[in-house]
Amino acid sequence: MTGSKTAALLIIGDEILSGRTQDTNTQTIAQMLGVKGIVIREVRVIPDVIETIVDTVNTIRRQYDYVFTTGGIGPTHDDKTAEAMAKAFGTTLERNADAWQRLVIHYEGEANMNAGRAKMAEIPVGAVLIDNPVSVAPGFRMDNVHVMAGVPKIMKGMMEFILPTLEGGDVVHARSVSADLPESALAQGLEAIENAYSGISVGSYPKFTPGMKPSTVIVICGVVLADVEKAANEVADLMERHGGTPRSSS
Amino acid sequence: MTGSKTAALLIIGDEILSGRTQDTNTQTIAQMLGVKGIVIREVRVIPDVIETIVDTVNTIRRQYDYVFTTGGIGPTHDDKTAEAMAKAFGTTLERNADAWQRLVIHYEGEANMNAGRAKMAEIPVGAVLIDNPVSVAPGFRMDNVHVMAGVPKIMKGMMEFILPTLEGGDVVHARSVSADLPESALAQGLEAIENAYSGISVGSYPKFTPGMKPSTVIVICGVVLADVEKAANEVADLMERHGGTPRSSS
Repeated sequence: MTGSKTAALLIIGDEILSGRTQDTNTQTIAQMLGVKGIVIREVRVIPDVIETIVDTVNTIRRQYDYVFTTGGIGPTHDDKTAEAMAKAFGTTLERNADAWQRLVIHYEGEANMNAGRAKMAEIPVGAVLIDNPVSVAPGFRMDNVHVMAGVPKIMKGMMEFILPTLEGGDVVHARSVSADLPESALAQGLEAIENAYSGISVGSYPKFTPGMKPSTVIVICGVVLADVEKAANEVADLMERHGGTPRSSS
Repeated sequence: MTGSKTAALLIIGDEILSGRTQDTNTQTIAQMLGVKGIVIREVRVIPDVIETIVDTVNTIRRQYDYVFTTGGIGPTHDDKTAEAMAKAFGTTLERNADAWQRLVIHYEGEANMNAGRAKMAEIPVGAVLIDNPVSVAPGFRMDNVHVMAGVPKIMKGMMEFILPTLEGGDVVHARSVSADLPESALAQGLEAIENAYSGISVGSYPKFTPGMKPSTVIVICGVVLADVEKAANEVADLMERHGGTPRSSS
């Protein structure tokens, strides 16, 4: 992973922890960052509790190049991320003039700015806004921490806004090769292939389908594409030696 | 959440962090634990790196009643969880006689026990096995940490084995009420309802569908079912006062 930038995700939301809602933002963000050469090294899912958010943000923002958070920036009392972010950075919330103006225009006049809508203009002092192409209420960035909405469509729009502002790194290329073989048959050969290439990682993922032979997907990753492809060819050869028919994809 | 037991999940796997694979184990485990009165307070997704696994397990196992891990107990070199767990608990791996026997029977004789299959019998000293109803290779428990496979079907089978062994707590009941209203309209009323009941949490989740009015799902949670239902009725009344037609579900 030499030369790649690193990131952590912070998924803020009781509804993910309770199992009521399936998180899909992790996968979306990982794929979007991946093409820029930014790799996610850690994801944490935490509840909507201010102290927990503050402690977690302050721990992880110093460990990675970038932090991305989702959830907790809406108009209701259970949206605590903005307040927590202000605390984490030792500042306070203020009515952000730019955010306020966007919301007033969207809701067609100050007369329609109830307390909930006004709350979405309360942004930590010093933050830089992140555009929201779906429902206007912005996210924001403080230092290396990007604070986004939890609703997947809004989050994705915010990520599209953020991406051009990020300094990327070496892109990690991946190839996958699969065959109808149990992964135990391939174990020793795979380790030898990984060891033969510095900077290449070889992951093995078994699949079990009732009534079918066990199959295995091998994923080869690395920043040097030529090495990834050479290693993937070696994996395919290994599978053939064990009587499998390798199927490759990128 | 008074009286509920607490848990943390540790999702171990490069393939989740890279976005190649969508984690679904979190939701499955959360729902299975929920009915026992065990609430997940934190989820971490980390890579297949021994030092990271050791540090994370040793941090979180002291903070929660239970820890559940998924991933990294297969036959290949990238399966590092068993070795990491041994290190975390200051012990070593040994060939577990019971695990070995199960695998020998499954693979129809010692002659078929290649290095990969033998690896799956290497279990930390002192661990208690967790049955695997799909592919035999067991998970294991050390103290309050339950180590499971990452393949969703196997993980679920292991959870079904584990559940009766867990001491449960107060079950958190939930009701949800939704209406075609923007959540900002409900914000103040919702906070008042949450404040009126101790031990009740009120979560607000907006939905944006192109071409449709914004809608909002309100989730009311608490261990006292009567209070949850009373608060849910108040949420429905609040929606009606704002011109909405509440739809309830549990």
